[in-house]
Amino acid sequence: MNDIQERIAASFNSQGLMTTLGARLLSVADGEVQIEMPFSTQLSQQHGYVHAGAITSIVDSACGYAALTKAPPDCEIVSAEFKINFARPAIGERFLAIGKVQTSGKLLTVCTGEVRALSGTAWKVIALMQATMVNVRA
Amino acid sequence: MNDIQERIAASFNSQGLMTTLGARLLSVADGEVQIEMPFSTQLSQQHGYVHAGAITSIVDSACGYAALTKAPPDCEIVSAEFKINFARPAIGERFLAIGKVQTSGKLLTVCTGEVRALSGTAWKVIALMQATMVNVRA
Amino acid sequence: MNDIQERIAASFNSQGLMTTLGARLLSVADGEVQIEMPFSTQLSQQHGYVHAGAITSIVDSACGYAALTKAPPDCEIVSAEFKINFARPAIGERFLAIGKVQTSGKLLTVCTGEVRALSGTAWKVIALMQATMVNVRA
Amino acid sequence: MNDIQERIAASFNSQGLMTTLGARLLSVADGEVQIEMPFSTQLSQQHGYVHAGAITSIVDSACGYAALTKAPPDCEIVSAEFKINFARPAIGERFLAIGKVQTSGKLLTVCTGEVRALSGTAWKVIALMQATMVNVRA
Repeated sequence: MNDIQERIAASFNSQGLMTTLGARLLSVADGEVQIEMPFSTQLSQQHGYVHAGAITSIVDSACGYAALTKAPPDCEIVSAEFKINFARPAIGERFLAIGKVQTSGKLLTVCTGEVRALSGTAWKVIALMQATMVNVRA
Repeated sequence: MNDIQERIAASFNSQGLMTTLGARLLSVADGEVQIEMPFSTQLSQQHGYVHAGAITSIVDSACGYAALTKAPPDCEIVSAEFKINFARPAIGERFLAIGKVQTSGKLLTVCTGEVRALSGTAWKVIALMQATMVNVRA
Repeated sequence: MNDIQERIAASFNSQGLMTTLGARLLSVADGEVQIEMPFSTQLSQQHGYVHAGAITSIVDSACGYAALTKAPPDCEIVSAEFKINFARPAIGERFLAIGKVQTSGKLLTVCTGEVRALSGTAWKVIALMQATMVNVRA
Repeated sequence: MNDIQERIAASFNSQGLMTTLGARLLSVADGEVQIEMPFSTQLSQQHGYVHAGAITSIVDSACGYAALTKAPPDCEIVSAEFKINFARPAIGERFLAIGKVQTSGKLLTVCTGEVRALSGTAWKVIALMQATMVNVRA
């Protein structure tokens, strides 16, 4: 796991969008990756909540890196597609995206993701993702 | 249409994320909205292409505003969910997101969206979205 | 729960498609419904496995009825949309669909579903669904 | 096209589920396949309309065969995943599913599908699909 943690940290740091969003790689475990992002008005939609696109970005990255922990060593991961439900408005001081591998094949990995929002001391699930990741020879 | 164009322009300008991404509202027509975004390294994923999350953000906004053109005047639009396929890597100098209303009911609007990338003089479709938008009393 | 179990059983029995597919309502709990379906060549796709459409049908019904256990008493449930991944070929003697409520609002309920296939003594997850159900006044 | 039309017709006829649903292969063109299905109470959900699962089954098959028209000759098609919106209740005397290829790569094909219902002399779109098909060496 050490190798893959370093590889994922390096890859995460090279994602310009993660820096732009203020996101931070929180943890890398076998089949599960967590990314967090503090609230910022620079991420807002028209009501001042966080835009669905910013929420989607961190959970897409979390799912992609979760898939990478299960991929052959010479492979990269690309998002083929995903679907995301927004169950509650993205209101909170910080947001935690958790990506998990559900099944992984030679070629395709199916991940689920969720995003939780922290308001005061309460975490609430605000979004649920189901994603298909593809292994690509690096 | 004039009213709704002004209302959408004002709403777009209050979306902090759209400014952060460098996105611009290009056109508002009945049932169709276009948003464009130039390439920037601040939007990149680890290979230097534009991150799926940035692509998703502009086409989600385009679909949401397209839905707003068909909504009752006292309604706002919220993304209930969407699904997006990434058909090609997001390589290009600029990106055009087009959101279109397919069917609209009292409560739910189904939109489709696509994102095209401009490389040199060629536009290519790089992503396809299918989204469910909800009318919410303002 | 007694009332809702009877109501779901009656509704299930009136779904012609469930009879056609040979499906059976297995259990109804608060926020979770299980449906099973034995293998039959009448459900096959071209390789003799069960068709994705039959697998989808039972997990859609399981998710819809799971949503109904959380709905106001005067409401029916309609599938607004769903997304399903087919992680493995649908090979087995019987198939178990489990629908679960993840979040439920006044109007929309987000469910996840899975389908497991039994081959010999081993159950394997073959499909994963994420669905949006709508409450409709009956 | 002649070869692929015969191959698709033979494959369709070996899908037990299509016979069970009363579905018929209507047309095969390059990148587009149409399947129709008459109404039957054996396909119903609890209100007597056609069950979302039956509607999904025919448009999944239409998308899969559309993808096959664009696949290398030694490949089969498998549904990796799809998403479907149900825009209107499935009421009608007959249903037409149209599957179309949007983009096709070496490995993955993205299709869109729609289902129209005929009531009297009016066709209405009742469902929209976006699907990912995989090429598998036969």
